[in-house]
Amino acid sequence: MAQQHPLPSKAEVDSYLRDRRNWGRWGSKGGAGAINLITPQKRVAAARLVRSGRAVCLSRPFPVTPSVENARPAQHYMWRSPGGPNGGGAAFDYYGIYYHGQSATHIDALCHTWDDNGMWDGKDSSDVITFSGAKYGGIDEWRDGILTRGVLLDVPKYRGKPYVTLEEPVHGWELDAVAASQGLKLEPGDAVAVYSGREAYARDHEGFWGGGPQRPGLHESCLPFLRDHDVSVLLWDMMDIRPTQYQIPWGVHGAIFAYGVALVDNALLEPLAKACAEEGRYEFMLTISPLNVAGGTGSPVNPIAVF
Amino acid sequence: MAQQHPLPSKAEVDSYLRDRRNWGRWGSKGGAGAINLITPQKRVAAARLVRSGRAVCLSRPFPVTPSVENARPAQHYMWRSPGGPNGGGAAFDYYGIYYHGQSATHIDALCHTWDDNGMWDGKDSSDVITFSGAKYGGIDEWRDGILTRGVLLDVPKYRGKPYVTLEEPVHGWELDAVAASQGLKLEPGDAVAVYSGREAYARDHEGFWGGGPQRPGLHESCLPFLRDHDVSVLLWDMMDIRPTQYQIPWGVHGAIFAYGVALVDNALLEPLAKACAEEGRYEFMLTISPLNVAGGTGSPVNPIAVF
Amino acid sequence: MAQQHPLPSKAEVDSYLRDRRNWGRWGSKGGAGAINLITPQKRVAAARLVRSGRAVCLSRPFPVTPSVENARPAQHYMWRSPGGPNGGGAAFDYYGIYYHGQSATHIDALCHTWDDNGMWDGKDSSDVITFSGAKYGGIDEWRDGILTRGVLLDVPKYRGKPYVTLEEPVHGWELDAVAASQGLKLEPGDAVAVYSGREAYARDHEGFWGGGPQRPGLHESCLPFLRDHDVSVLLWDMMDIRPTQYQIPWGVHGAIFAYGVALVDNALLEPLAKACAEEGRYEFMLTISPLNVAGGTGSPVNPIAVF
Amino acid sequence: MAQQHPLPSKAEVDSYLRDRRNWGRWGSKGGAGAINLITPQKRVAAARLVRSGRAVCLSRPFPVTPSVENARPAQHYMWRSPGGPNGGGAAFDYYGIYYHGQSATHIDALCHTWDDNGMWDGKDSSDVITFSGAKYGGIDEWRDGILTRGVLLDVPKYRGKPYVTLEEPVHGWELDAVAASQGLKLEPGDAVAVYSGREAYARDHEGFWGGGPQRPGLHESCLPFLRDHDVSVLLWDMMDIRPTQYQIPWGVHGAIFAYGVALVDNALLEPLAKACAEEGRYEFMLTISPLNVAGGTGSPVNPIAVF
Repeated sequence: MAQQHPLPSKAEVDSYLRDRRNWGRWGSKGGAGAINLITPQKRVAAARLVRSGRAVCLSRPFPVTPSVENARPAQHYMWRSPGGPNGGGAAFDYYGIYYHGQSATHIDALCHTWDDNGMWDGKDSSDVITFSGAKYGGIDEWRDGILTRGVLLDVPKYRGKPYVTLEEPVHGWELDAVAASQGLKLEPGDAVAVYSGREAYARDHEGFWGGGPQRPGLHESCLPFLRDHDVSVLLWDMMDIRPTQYQIPWGVHGAIFAYGVALVDNALLEPLAKACAEEGRYEFMLTISPLNVAGGTGSPVNPIAVF
Repeated sequence: MAQQHPLPSKAEVDSYLRDRRNWGRWGSKGGAGAINLITPQKRVAAARLVRSGRAVCLSRPFPVTPSVENARPAQHYMWRSPGGPNGGGAAFDYYGIYYHGQSATHIDALCHTWDDNGMWDGKDSSDVITFSGAKYGGIDEWRDGILTRGVLLDVPKYRGKPYVTLEEPVHGWELDAVAASQGLKLEPGDAVAVYSGREAYARDHEGFWGGGPQRPGLHESCLPFLRDHDVSVLLWDMMDIRPTQYQIPWGVHGAIFAYGVALVDNALLEPLAKACAEEGRYEFMLTISPLNVAGGTGSPVNPIAVF
Repeated sequence: MAQQHPLPSKAEVDSYLRDRRNWGRWGSKGGAGAINLITPQKRVAAARLVRSGRAVCLSRPFPVTPSVENARPAQHYMWRSPGGPNGGGAAFDYYGIYYHGQSATHIDALCHTWDDNGMWDGKDSSDVITFSGAKYGGIDEWRDGILTRGVLLDVPKYRGKPYVTLEEPVHGWELDAVAASQGLKLEPGDAVAVYSGREAYARDHEGFWGGGPQRPGLHESCLPFLRDHDVSVLLWDMMDIRPTQYQIPWGVHGAIFAYGVALVDNALLEPLAKACAEEGRYEFMLTISPLNVAGGTGSPVNPIAVF
Repeated sequence: MAQQHPLPSKAEVDSYLRDRRNWGRWGSKGGAGAINLITPQKRVAAARLVRSGRAVCLSRPFPVTPSVENARPAQHYMWRSPGGPNGGGAAFDYYGIYYHGQSATHIDALCHTWDDNGMWDGKDSSDVITFSGAKYGGIDEWRDGILTRGVLLDVPKYRGKPYVTLEEPVHGWELDAVAASQGLKLEPGDAVAVYSGREAYARDHEGFWGGGPQRPGLHESCLPFLRDHDVSVLLWDMMDIRPTQYQIPWGVHGAIFAYGVALVDNALLEPLAKACAEEGRYEFMLTISPLNVAGGTGSPVNPIAVF
């Protein structure tokens, strides 16, 4: 089991984030980071995965309800017109959202996080982050959408347990084992969805996974997994474990600034795990279409898996 | 040319909206409207259209700048964290948008418009539209995303003129002629993008197409085209002409409540027209992934065409 | 002590809200409710209370920080201009707030609450509350501001205890006793601030008074006090106790729809209690200036007491 | 008339803003700027001005409607509760506003504007303006409210013309003449309302005063008037003329960073002018109660004049 593998030392984790960086790897196209791994050929191959036509929504509902996990709920307000000169009418609504956090399904742009060594591609946050948006690594780098092969790693199924717990985080070597057990061979540019059973966890824990100082999820040892396999996008329901044991500002979220990986936080993966089991395969075409916000630090998204 | 065809009478237009309705057609699945036409098989076929892997963004930028065409600009505000105990930092942002109107690229849900005969599927707006969202025909009906064959009808190319004008609206018979000229055969469930040259029009008209009492676009005669071909989604850059000559509250927007068609307003189609010309084909895989808002009247979206 | 007084029965409380209503009392000026009690003469007399010139802010800070007591935190976002052609620059900000609840200091308009007998002045909420604001009893009824005599009733001082507790709510007869002990004679149109020691309570209760199913505060028996003395405005730090024992939707908040009284919820009264003690008097000039929002259900406010 | 007076040179205007600064004048209380001029004694004297008890609202309506003058309209959305277990119900609303500009009645904090010589009290905007608010000169400096003697200078009445025009701006020497004609003697700490007839101007100019590159209003020559008389607050309906002829980033708005004066932009002064004429006096008690926003750059306000 996972625990038999030695945990990486602080020096090793620091090295993951510092010595294995993808900085400069994509030259003048660096602002798009690891999404550069998704070539036109990769998109064509991904589309070939559509065989049954089943589509699965990976987005939690727009989070308007306050909770410990949703400390800054979104705004959704309606307006109904009184009707015009020719009769009829219309309904409108306002959406407002501060989407980062533990509730909204959203994608992180490469300008979202940094550590003291710098931002993605060696940028300085003081220069990049302005009152008018980010000048590098903004969400609009991905305005053409993300279309690639998606794979699901079903940790609960592998473990034979309903969900990941605080006591037993997900480790990088386990992800390799899960993939192998599912007969998956990862390829560069794949989007990897790591399912940890958040919904089941919440059902057993008063409705919530996050919101407190501790939360189960992915250990820092997962960083090399992302780098070794040239993952372009990580989707996860549980995210990186809290608290860190390594005195670093960001655990697996460090893949943003170290490797240029796109993260889809708070993805809804339980229905996807069910669909994978029913379809008998753990790969699918994945589409993610961020809003086209100039210099945005991410976007609420509705990722769709199609089998 | 278009003008040689007789214009429909008021009685004919009323009949388009009343006598050819799709109300009840999809039974208990009616809330999804014409998106029901997109079967799993349709999705599989659409994915087969991906051959070169070229992806094109059909979304205008998130509309934060006020203009005559953007009377209620969106909110985009940044926040940069001061850093935590382990150093590093992060940037966050807030997005707020009242997205209907003439600026944001967005999809209309089936609860968005109605006339005095009722809402989509015969519902009553007084019952459906509540302060907490729509109880029928909300955007979450399409939470699994829209993936279908997209086709572009390039009106300026057909006409040999840079853009549609007030004097010469787009008519339904012209759309058939455009399709034929492009060698396209429409099939049920197709998403049709009608390109009218809005960007070029704006360049010649002080930067704007809309915002005033008059705007060029699609004439009410386009309604039967949508119904005859069982179109699932209409994407358009110019939208329905204003003002109407038929004393009706909604022109082509009536396709929402009469036929259950999804509209993608303010789509950015100039780059798509260019891509179609370069790729030598006017069909592609189209994906639209609305935010998963319970009872929302639509969603800002970033539709993606993939060749 | 308070407990020796018999508690009112359900029938008595229902009678407070039904049989002692001020409906119709102010005729065509009814939309302003009990603020009608503040005559020009009353304002002149209130201004005469300004003798030392000491001003005290009664507003808690704009509530941007999430907490159990602030489930829908306010939005405050900054923007700094990059400078214009002549140099210099400017800073701007956005304020967004859903102000009702237990955190923001705000005033309730008369359209804010109702019970099954109706809204203030006998109106029907289905007619009055529209998507475009309230058609009766909106906050703009008080656009000329509220300027009156304010009095503070210092319950902790009277009790010799730091704050009101769940076990010992504030009762109407106690308010009379507090006033008498402070040598105060209430007059029609007075604004009454009932200080219950919320800040001290929070210091002893993990930082919060509200947010849970139970909260200490004013008992329904306070309703006749407000009616008997023709109070125009009630300011309170703790508000009505929760839960009610009377199977009614609103406890002391019923003063809104029964008597037309303006409530200032979440007022910051600890500094006022200190000032009253130091100034040696419990009366002062009070000003409340709601934002001029057409049909609003209230407003965030910063009430000011001046001695 | 005003035109006979020689206009100040560029060097003179620069000198107004640089050589006559109040920087350092109020020592450790500098963050409150010229509001320091409003002493407790000043407040007592102001309250003595309340004699008839007439109250006048100086706030335009919350600006929810788009226009050339209101390019970023405010958000006002309603929500009506479906009712709880004990019946009844409630209405709530959301207010969102980016209040600076030419529409909302608001007060500018001292951190709002600066020129290349610096911010108010010699601060550097790079240090002061953060993503979390201003660290100096924020609106919360005035959380205790502003209560002082207000005086109205009625320029249209003085001129015998309905409103100020582009051709004839308001000059500083004219303000002195207006005051003299009204029998007013200005005193330190007074709030001065300069009425220029904006509402009448708008009625004659398609509904608007501002919104374009040009707008009538107060000339830079008014700066010494504010400084000479130790004005604490300037309220104005028309604001500083645009464009400037002096190649400076801010005209009379420079009083913020040079003198520490609070500005109330877009004040509604026509009703006040009417009230002054009817009451036969141009002085009154003025109250302004900004929202208590930590580090805010200003606040929407509803200033109230009481006679």
